[in-house]
Amino acid sequence: MFTAIDHVGIAVADYQNGIDFYTGTFGMTVLHEEVNEEQGVREAMLAPGSDASGTQIQLLAPLTLESTIAKFLDRNGPGIQQIAYRVTDVAATAATLRERGLRLLYDAPKRGTAGSLVNFIHPKDAGGILVELVQPATDHQTVPQ
Amino acid sequence: MFTAIDHVGIAVADYQNGIDFYTGTFGMTVLHEEVNEEQGVREAMLAPGSDASGTQIQLLAPLTLESTIAKFLDRNGPGIQQIAYRVTDVAATAATLRERGLRLLYDAPKRGTAGSLVNFIHPKDAGGILVELVQPATDHQTVPQ
Ligand SMILES: [Co+2]
Ligand SMILES: [Co+2]
Repeated sequence: MFTAIDHVGIAVADYQNGIDFYTGTFGMTVLHEEVNEEQGVREAMLAPGSDASGTQIQLLAPLTLESTIAKFLDRNGPGIQQIAYRVTDVAATAATLRERGLRLLYDAPKRGTAGSLVNFIHPKDAGGILVELVQPATDHQTVPQ
Repeated sequence: MFTAIDHVGIAVADYQNGIDFYTGTFGMTVLHEEVNEEQGVREAMLAPGSDASGTQIQLLAPLTLESTIAKFLDRNGPGIQQIAYRVTDVAATAATLRERGLRLLYDAPKRGTAGSLVNFIHPKDAGGILVELVQPATDHQTVPQ
């Protein structure tokens, strides 16, 4: 069903403080940065070590007070907000999971980081965890911001 | 500093229900199972896809009401409890992080899953996240339970 853990999404109140901590204190490398106005988020993908193809860290900072990340920070404070599994066909995976009784947040996939297609499993149907499904962009191009 | 995300640790109230969900609904493969009496936890390592060398899921179920996982479940309900980074020398990484002002939970590394050596960064010094540092066992042998 999944091919790998694509990334772990971490909510931070301040984008630059988050970048400084993960690159400075933890020595990670920024692979990609992006603003997603629709989701109200400024985000970065980071490689924990020298292998950029493994599971990454996604830093998520709120652009607006009404965004999902702002609401998460209000309720929980900073911390892990989501786990994202990589899939080859997000629509097909979503259909299989619906057959297995799980609720997805979107009827159809939406645009995620770097041109990927994403959907989310409802946390109540995934053991209290917000689970993202990520189908990476096929051309591996960086989408202009 | 880190070589990879070793695993994401997920707290579940019932061990067998957790295994059934992750193997059945999510199609993951159990790689390792273990009881750690010292930590009061019954745990499993699972591969999300066919690649057993990538970042894994660690299911954590409480053995006792006083265990760390039981307390986490009381406070937060089921969900992501920790993120674990792989390191080559956990004592050296801990020393470097202490120099950078972070508090570690143990003075010296303790025994983790499958004969690994582990320590933890205090969540207050890591953006609200319980961060585990894992130095895998060198012989890759499964430690008898
Ligand atoms: Co994400
Ligand atoms: Co762990």
